[in-house]
Amino acid sequence: MIVHPAYPVDPWCLREERLDTDVLAQSESLFALSNGHLGWRGTLDEGEPRGLSGSYLNGVYEGHRRHAPEPQYGSPETEQTVVDVTDGKLVRLLVDDEPFDLRYGRLRGHRRVLDLRSGVLERVVEWTSPSGRTVRVRSWRLVSLTQRAIGAIAYEVEPVDGEARIVLQSELLANATAPTDDDAVLVGEEHAAQGTALRLVHRTRHSGLRVAVAAEHTLDGPSGTAVQASAGPDLARLTVTSRLRPGQVLRLEKLVAHGWSAVRSRPAVADQVDAALTVARDTGWDGLVAEQRRFLDALWAGADVRVDGDEELQLAVRFGLFQVVQAAARAEERAVPVKGLTGPGYDGHCFWDSELFVLQVLCYTFPSAVAPALRWRHRTLPAALRRAARLGLEGAAFPWRTINGEEGAGYWPTGLAAFHVNADIADAVVRYTSATDDLLFDREAGLELLVHTARLWHSLGHVDHRGAFHLDGVTGPDEYSAVVDDNVFTNLMAQQNLRAAADAAERNADLALALGVSDAETAAWRDAALHLALPYNGLLGVHEQSAGFTGHQVWDFEGTPPDAYPLWRHRSYFQLYRKQVVKQADLVLAMQLRGEAFSPAQKARNFAYYEALTVRDSPLSAHSQAVLAAEVGQLELAYDYLAESALTDPADPERDTRDGLHLAALAGTWIGLVAGFGGMRHHGDALTFAPRLPGRLTGLCFTVRFQRRLVRVEVAAERAEYRLLDGPELELWHHGEPFTLTRDAPVTLPVPEPRPLPRAVQPPGRRPVRRTPEPPEPPEPPEAPEPPDDEE
Amino acid sequence: MIVHPAYPVDPWCLREERLDTDVLAQSESLFALSNGHLGWRGTLDEGEPRGLSGSYLNGVYEGHRRHAPEPQYGSPETEQTVVDVTDGKLVRLLVDDEPFDLRYGRLRGHRRVLDLRSGVLERVVEWTSPSGRTVRVRSWRLVSLTQRAIGAIAYEVEPVDGEARIVLQSELLANATAPTDDDAVLVGEEHAAQGTALRLVHRTRHSGLRVAVAAEHTLDGPSGTAVQASAGPDLARLTVTSRLRPGQVLRLEKLVAHGWSAVRSRPAVADQVDAALTVARDTGWDGLVAEQRRFLDALWAGADVRVDGDEELQLAVRFGLFQVVQAAARAEERAVPVKGLTGPGYDGHCFWDSELFVLQVLCYTFPSAVAPALRWRHRTLPAALRRAARLGLEGAAFPWRTINGEEGAGYWPTGLAAFHVNADIADAVVRYTSATDDLLFDREAGLELLVHTARLWHSLGHVDHRGAFHLDGVTGPDEYSAVVDDNVFTNLMAQQNLRAAADAAERNADLALALGVSDAETAAWRDAALHLALPYNGLLGVHEQSAGFTGHQVWDFEGTPPDAYPLWRHRSYFQLYRKQVVKQADLVLAMQLRGEAFSPAQKARNFAYYEALTVRDSPLSAHSQAVLAAEVGQLELAYDYLAESALTDPADPERDTRDGLHLAALAGTWIGLVAGFGGMRHHGDALTFAPRLPGRLTGLCFTVRFQRRLVRVEVAAERAEYRLLDGPELELWHHGEPFTLTRDAPVTLPVPEPRPLPRAVQPPGRRPVRRTPEPPEPPEPPEAPEPPDDEE
Repeated sequence: MIVHPAYPVDPWCLREERLDTDVLAQSESLFALSNGHLGWRGTLDEGEPRGLSGSYLNGVYEGHRRHAPEPQYGSPETEQTVVDVTDGKLVRLLVDDEPFDLRYGRLRGHRRVLDLRSGVLERVVEWTSPSGRTVRVRSWRLVSLTQRAIGAIAYEVEPVDGEARIVLQSELLANATAPTDDDAVLVGEEHAAQGTALRLVHRTRHSGLRVAVAAEHTLDGPSGTAVQASAGPDLARLTVTSRLRPGQVLRLEKLVAHGWSAVRSRPAVADQVDAALTVARDTGWDGLVAEQRRFLDALWAGADVRVDGDEELQLAVRFGLFQVVQAAARAEERAVPVKGLTGPGYDGHCFWDSELFVLQVLCYTFPSAVAPALRWRHRTLPAALRRAARLGLEGAAFPWRTINGEEGAGYWPTGLAAFHVNADIADAVVRYTSATDDLLFDREAGLELLVHTARLWHSLGHVDHRGAFHLDGVTGPDEYSAVVDDNVFTNLMAQQNLRAAADAAERNADLALALGVSDAETAAWRDAALHLALPYNGLLGVHEQSAGFTGHQVWDFEGTPPDAYPLWRHRSYFQLYRKQVVKQADLVLAMQLRGEAFSPAQKARNFAYYEALTVRDSPLSAHSQAVLAAEVGQLELAYDYLAESALTDPADPERDTRDGLHLAALAGTWIGLVAGFGGMRHHGDALTFAPRLPGRLTGLCFTVRFQRRLVRVEVAAERAEYRLLDGPELELWHHGEPFTLTRDAPVTLPVPEPRPLPRAVQPPGRRPVRRTPEPPEPPEPPEAPEPPDDEE
Repeated sequence: MIVHPAYPVDPWCLREERLDTDVLAQSESLFALSNGHLGWRGTLDEGEPRGLSGSYLNGVYEGHRRHAPEPQYGSPETEQTVVDVTDGKLVRLLVDDEPFDLRYGRLRGHRRVLDLRSGVLERVVEWTSPSGRTVRVRSWRLVSLTQRAIGAIAYEVEPVDGEARIVLQSELLANATAPTDDDAVLVGEEHAAQGTALRLVHRTRHSGLRVAVAAEHTLDGPSGTAVQASAGPDLARLTVTSRLRPGQVLRLEKLVAHGWSAVRSRPAVADQVDAALTVARDTGWDGLVAEQRRFLDALWAGADVRVDGDEELQLAVRFGLFQVVQAAARAEERAVPVKGLTGPGYDGHCFWDSELFVLQVLCYTFPSAVAPALRWRHRTLPAALRRAARLGLEGAAFPWRTINGEEGAGYWPTGLAAFHVNADIADAVVRYTSATDDLLFDREAGLELLVHTARLWHSLGHVDHRGAFHLDGVTGPDEYSAVVDDNVFTNLMAQQNLRAAADAAERNADLALALGVSDAETAAWRDAALHLALPYNGLLGVHEQSAGFTGHQVWDFEGTPPDAYPLWRHRSYFQLYRKQVVKQADLVLAMQLRGEAFSPAQKARNFAYYEALTVRDSPLSAHSQAVLAAEVGQLELAYDYLAESALTDPADPERDTRDGLHLAALAGTWIGLVAGFGGMRHHGDALTFAPRLPGRLTGLCFTVRFQRRLVRVEVAAERAEYRLLDGPELELWHHGEPFTLTRDAPVTLPVPEPRPLPRAVQPPGRRPVRRTPEPPEPPEPPEAPEPPDDEE
């Protein structure tokens, strides 16, 4: 869609110049607004036409008993599904008693702009009704990053070519899409309308969560404008009627407050939204807009990424960072779901990619959102401890997918075997603690997360007669293998987890003692970490993704037609599991996150080997491949992968952006640029860089927060400049050489030439699209002109 | 139950001396009658009290769309469930208008006897009604082994202590247990009652199979006995009323004919049962009883096993053989389900154990039932070819579980990976063809089954750079491992399959050509067979059940309490798959079926190694362990296993005999005796014996059919006598030495002493119960009496 003609490129704004109803649902995801607590899909103000309506409150889910024809020990008993809560963003419009519906009449213009600096979605429409009256509508919408309960809308209508009778219906609407009352997830508890205020309180039918939504309105219109409010169990409505002459404008400002609770009483939850609404009313629409701008100004000042030479990528990295921030900014001890709050995809569940990709980016750009997300994991520790015990294991087994902390995966090769999620959570804890020195978090949550996950690994593994520590029967990131022994990614991440737990226990000896951690236990963790098996095929000189992997038959890529991708949709998992075929970066991701465990030569060989097997049937893959491609010096390939990843949602190859944005891929644009072309790594407590640009990029500038400093790196083709914007001096690395950066002066260092390597080869048909067109073959030299027949 | 006080041991009869309503469902399974086409559970004639009513027609199933929350490519879309068809065995009795119900009044005596020589279930009851009238009831029931559509009942009632008004209601009843009409699987199409004849025709709701049941009656009673017939959609009834004085007997003979079809019209199916009924009426009750006896006389003459020294085992082996024969005798190109037609367990599906255990026994005892069972597989080839194609494989992929030939397994580690079922079918083809020289079968079905399964293996496997042929990602017999590489059982069975297919193609060159088999293809099969990988741990000197198996952690048996068994019910599959723990004979079964592929020393080491890991959470295991224990010379251990296997249904440790008998375990009693203590093996075209008895057995005598001969083997402690009862001379082997057997004279050979080996050790608590009590510890020598204080 950014690549769609309706989306011209602008470095700071996502723009849509005309309405294409074929991709309405996709555009609703792209224009979704959120603050991590409340999410509003980018549906049109009038509600219809629509793709998928959607208003979400982080943590509000419905639970259904799972039907399992062959139930097994350890399978989850309930399904969790995100709930589309009471819709507060509806403003219906009637023009001379005809509903304003863009499918009828004549749409003369429709423009939407999401400005990433203001955080406001603006819309301008000009429409002629079937009876011939033309009106202009402008609206602005925001979900407040400063007042988490609040979404707000300003809506203006103005007749263009003659007097018109205008009716606005500003609504709160619950269960809008339930086919029958029995299907309705929300059960009405209270409805109220008074003056210009509306309120609805509901409870989810099975999970019993109470949801309250309230709205307040401000009107500006000609005299004679009248309002009337009404309410029923699922619909509260403020009706505004006015008669406007051309040039006269009717403006409605609507502030909507949202709240929910699993435990608080109906009056308490109702009071909570009223209180939020009172604050928002005091702030007013203009105040909310100003707060939003200030919040984002601060974000961009410390986190912007500038890309010179590729306008699409410039917009994409800012859009990605904006989405990552708005998904997590105010999540406050709730999960960051895989789709953020932009759609119902994956049932609104949170997966491992939250910690590994989303929190990775936030750690260096908006670290204040990281601790709350990890504190959410900490809050769900009791469920993870219960689950581990149920599986006969020590420590905590965090769920593969969840909303409420309980396992939500019915497919056991992930739900029961993809244990790496625990090490991924630990990775985020380690990264955040090192990057911020947040000792309070370390003591209140980090230590416990590390200790209980380390205990899991220790009980999950075993020592063979040669002394090697093995983790058998697990599923790694690559979902085209499952239930394998010694997945290198899992083992390396577990190794980090075990060591970090021992470190944390020693750092917080008093608390560790209270958790029953003895010296013997930390010694056992370090011992297991030291002896972790890493399968390696000496003949090929490459690591095995898991034990025995390189002995499997290579997938018949030549015999696989293009329409057989993604393979999981057209081939059985059984056939995939037993062959060498990789869905997504697995060993390659290990080489990024635990890069210090591999030699440069191993990285180059491994990268080439797994490139030939990786089909990228997951949006989690391309950006990791970009990072490693850049590291081994294949800069053009890295650039191709980065562009593919950055355009996941706009280009929408799998036609699933309609269900919500791919948050991990959006985070991946930042990762691909900063870790890829910036070469940034954070191993141990050191921050290192190895910047190097692909041919078409003329510059790259990014700012990261690290250990209370603000560091800006500006990369050009042949040199990189490091600048300390804030904080005390620190040691950094540039292409393997340490240097000290102070606030006194920037440091400029040369970028070495990469080692020339042949471009890695992908399976047939799975090569990423070339971002920089290959130089055309030099034209055949013109044949030497025949000597003229006749000399003069 | 045989071990229950109500079941005294009799060498030829299963006897129940009193009615125990707590185990009613189990006794219904034990007294079930069948001929492979029709199955009647041993419910009481009056229908109630009952455990699980059940009348089954082989192949009649209902299909339901499968609900899969996370559907996957290749998963089956429908569920198949055996249907409880119209019940024709009901004869309700009223005594002076009080229903004869054993739960009320006073039961003075209740005896049931199933005579394995007559194939008739006899019942004698004496009962006093709540109002004080005592009657004697005798009934006889059979399911005809000679007229496959027919079940028959003779029912007599006689007052003991005074005149009584007797009413008999002989019924055909459909949908007896459906809670509502919507749940009824059978949809009525026709009902008729005329004279003493009844008929109902139904169709299954979703699968659309037409089922017809018709009954005819003969009455013998005092004058004044009146009859009246009526019929509705689900109930046809003949009501008989009579007034009897003591000494007067009312006798009802009821002949019931059954038929079904997926394609024939209602009139055609109705005609079909009428025709069967006409033949049965001409034969009459006495004629049916006589035919049944002749059929079984012939069976026992050629197949009886005599066991001296263990009466329970004597009855058990005959009961087992009777069940195996009645499950398959008239199946005629339908499956032999895992429960026969004795109950609804496993949804009435057929699994691999049909070919591997049931057909193995029939091959040497009742070979005429083997070809039809394999022709059923042949009839389902189109579905198996489609399934292989859907999975991207060549040849045929037969289903893991099925009724109609389509895959019925929703759990993919079996449904998509337990490919050994194909080699197991091939094993039965090879065994049957070699044992019978049935060249017609070879040409009409055997060749195609072998060719298409060989093609499957060839396409499933791959050759590594050292030239070894691997079968990766499969599930073997042991269900506590799944999706492993190079399962030795699977590989050895596939090896046999590949070679047998090449042999069959060369034997039938004309037909093979028509199947597109080239010399290059058979050469490729032989090549794959030659180079099949067999994982072996040289350090331990044992084969690995699958690649890497012996490197896994050994299950924590010490920490597993007795009530955690069977493990699949109390532990997650994930935990089992990643450890060394074996549910059931896997490598041990390979050593039985492909014994020639192992040296005697390997067998002994492998046996000891896997004994320590095998928990026998499957009834398919103990008899295979018995066979190998006997082979490696551990005769008392073999005896313990054999007894455990033989008593699976009577002792019912898992409380699941209620759902039907464990046919494979029933076959296992014969296998344990003949292959275990008889040491019989059939590798290639040779029949070999290595008989050796455990201490308590004083004799074992069995008769087997082999290549048109009838061979009787009589084993005593120190010698074995071989006798050729029928057919031309043949070469046999005794403990590795060949000898020629003619009809002129028996051959008597000495039984060598076994090599002394320590008794293999099982996981704690999983040792089989000692069949021969260990000799008591010698009593402590009495303490020397104190010397008397006072000497005289």
